[in-house]
Amino acid sequence: MAEPQDDRFRLEPDQALIVAERFGTPAYVVGEAHFRTRIRRYRAAFQAAYADSELTFASKANSTLALIAIAHQEGCLIDTASEGEFRAALAAGVPASRCHLHGNNKSVEELAFAMGQGIGQIVVDHFDEIDAIVALSDRRACPELVLRLAPGVDPVTHAKISTGQADTKFGFNIADGSAEEATKRCLQKGLPLAGFHCHVGSQLLDPEAQISGGQLVAEFAARMARDHGFQSSILNVGGGLGIRYTDRDVPMSVEDYCAELVAAIQEALRGSGLRPRLVQEPGRSLIGESGVTLYRVGVRKMVPAKGGSRTYLSVDGGLSDNPRPALYGAKYPVERVSPASGGPEAVFTVSGKHCETDRLFEDVSLPEGTGRGDLLQVLCTGAYNSSMASNYNRYPRPTTVLLSESGEFEVVQRPETWDEMFARESIPGRLRREAVGAGN
Amino acid sequence: MAEPQDDRFRLEPDQALIVAERFGTPAYVVGEAHFRTRIRRYRAAFQAAYADSELTFASKANSTLALIAIAHQEGCLIDTASEGEFRAALAAGVPASRCHLHGNNKSVEELAFAMGQGIGQIVVDHFDEIDAIVALSDRRACPELVLRLAPGVDPVTHAKISTGQADTKFGFNIADGSAEEATKRCLQKGLPLAGFHCHVGSQLLDPEAQISGGQLVAEFAARMARDHGFQSSILNVGGGLGIRYTDRDVPMSVEDYCAELVAAIQEALRGSGLRPRLVQEPGRSLIGESGVTLYRVGVRKMVPAKGGSRTYLSVDGGLSDNPRPALYGAKYPVERVSPASGGPEAVFTVSGKHCETDRLFEDVSLPEGTGRGDLLQVLCTGAYNSSMASNYNRYPRPTTVLLSESGEFEVVQRPETWDEMFARESIPGRLRREAVGAGN
Repeated sequence: MAEPQDDRFRLEPDQALIVAERFGTPAYVVGEAHFRTRIRRYRAAFQAAYADSELTFASKANSTLALIAIAHQEGCLIDTASEGEFRAALAAGVPASRCHLHGNNKSVEELAFAMGQGIGQIVVDHFDEIDAIVALSDRRACPELVLRLAPGVDPVTHAKISTGQADTKFGFNIADGSAEEATKRCLQKGLPLAGFHCHVGSQLLDPEAQISGGQLVAEFAARMARDHGFQSSILNVGGGLGIRYTDRDVPMSVEDYCAELVAAIQEALRGSGLRPRLVQEPGRSLIGESGVTLYRVGVRKMVPAKGGSRTYLSVDGGLSDNPRPALYGAKYPVERVSPASGGPEAVFTVSGKHCETDRLFEDVSLPEGTGRGDLLQVLCTGAYNSSMASNYNRYPRPTTVLLSESGEFEVVQRPETWDEMFARESIPGRLRREAVGAGN
Repeated sequence: MAEPQDDRFRLEPDQALIVAERFGTPAYVVGEAHFRTRIRRYRAAFQAAYADSELTFASKANSTLALIAIAHQEGCLIDTASEGEFRAALAAGVPASRCHLHGNNKSVEELAFAMGQGIGQIVVDHFDEIDAIVALSDRRACPELVLRLAPGVDPVTHAKISTGQADTKFGFNIADGSAEEATKRCLQKGLPLAGFHCHVGSQLLDPEAQISGGQLVAEFAARMARDHGFQSSILNVGGGLGIRYTDRDVPMSVEDYCAELVAAIQEALRGSGLRPRLVQEPGRSLIGESGVTLYRVGVRKMVPAKGGSRTYLSVDGGLSDNPRPALYGAKYPVERVSPASGGPEAVFTVSGKHCETDRLFEDVSLPEGTGRGDLLQVLCTGAYNSSMASNYNRYPRPTTVLLSESGEFEVVQRPETWDEMFARESIPGRLRREAVGAGN
């Protein structure tokens, strides 16, 4: 098999210098052209496989408003997993009708807000939610509904991001009859049920589980047509295609994936008379490879370690701006970008500034002289970095800079200020008294 | 061995109802009296073992301003691990002279700010930092310095929070001669070196590693006195004593710990002529057991699972307000507080609202009827929850409520607003254009 071309977004050395000098580090940088190209390629592949298809951007991957706006311009629906993500989509100028609302534990207030705003679709997760929607529909238009199903597929991925097995908090189980029961309840209540949804997991390099999930949902839809006369007009098979975090991560091409997925679904629908619209909701696979994080190296330190020594490079960010190495043991490609890479390499451990181990990237090959002042770019950080960032150790969250199609850098999320860091706090007057024990 | 008394802070049912109704859920609640009692007990134990001793509150555990103010009132120094934590201490009314600055990769700007404000002590981590301090001391008073040492102790704790082994980004290695070299350099440069520091890890239930660390640092100080005539006036042996997250976590009592630690250090100092002040910097062991997180249960769902079935209770928070289960596999005690616990129990999995697996607490025993509307309190969440919280899935960060000594509830950190959530963002005008592909 030929090595796939490495088209992950990266900064050129002169661009990295501009970003570092103008906006500081750490900085998230997203390539607009790259992101648009990814969306277009995915849409084209999906439509080539099945004309009546639609792409939804899973905004949880990166809900920076400007990026939601780009996904919307490119014709994506916006998948929101909370009231906050839905509000982000609205703030980005997306009409409510182009948004979907997910959630395993939506509150009545969230449902009321979404319905009041005219959200396009709700992905229903539980019987309580059906009841809540019925009650709310007295006074508000009920949007199109799809039922999230748990198809009972165990994907091969990290346990924390696998969600399609039977043992999951999400959705209605097919195997135990819950999914059929929920379908009947929606039909009995006269709700505008449009179809079904599943999502089996994230960062799947072998898409067999997703394809099985799609197939099982399609078979379920066919059964509901046969047994209850329910004609699904929508099947949403979720997202989850992996990206190339490391050279060992070789995801299936989106063209092959869409073709195989659609073939499996069409096979499952054969003879049912159903011709539903097919929907996918990728997040990471659209935005993940379009972003880098730029750090500046500070301390370089060689210490004794198992088998000899280890050289640490400490950068000016860490756990607070990239929690995935600590959360999931995630690996990332790290490159020295300024001065440009070249010459003999050595192996480093890149650590963050935080007051814990905070090892970000282990066994990283970089030019052997890499040290203070050099800029490192971490590829594939477009997804789940900005959206998961914290203020741990009171680090302000970094800026997000968009590299526009015309090559301009635009700040779309400025860094946090110290005032913002403390704005929510207040100290009761009695705690301002002179310290009783200070200095003793 | 007698079961230690369970004195972890918890809300009574009527208090939980007040918090939920008045402030909403999720909510962090800290017991002021509990926190003060913990500090006083730790100080008393340390002073009983060694009169010239001092306690530093490691504010990274929880840098809510009101809590820093309480620690300061109780006579603690404040350990800050970044410019942001130092600014938090200043905002809490702590004089700069009562603060220490840590960090494995302090920038020159951070050092300049800290020295300009008159910080009390800098814990120096690297040769570059010595040089930076020398350069900055031209125009600013140089504060008391201590050198952070890597004593080469491998503590038995989670790998992500162990920091005292030789292979660490932190400090000057004793074994490879770096620590002696750094001492000599400070003395040559005429810097106000006061002594040494080590910290071997966190949540240590068997404090043998800390005691060894303290001993090694004391031996090093004795050697520096003998070989270089340097009289250490401060030895800081860090923090790290574990707390009772679960009933299987049985930390040594602070009285026994202080007695053993001091005995080991005194033994190591014997004959050196040194009588340094001893310092410890606990964080979690002061504030961890003083806080709870209050959630309200939403969806209850029984699904097929290995060995039969699993019942999920989904609460109205999750990964964004308590990342430690996902980060470290952390376990917490969970209690139903309203209605009060009682009656036969069943086993549940408590999951969060986030759009991933987000299992917070597994195998939790709760009254079997627990379901929608019930309040759960999670004990031992005073440390590393509020300080590590994120906006993942665009959830606003929760409030922190202080239960005062007089039994009043006071908001010391209000919840985030939607406006704050989006305040840092801007959307270039060209991205506001009508979507080119929407609805096709």
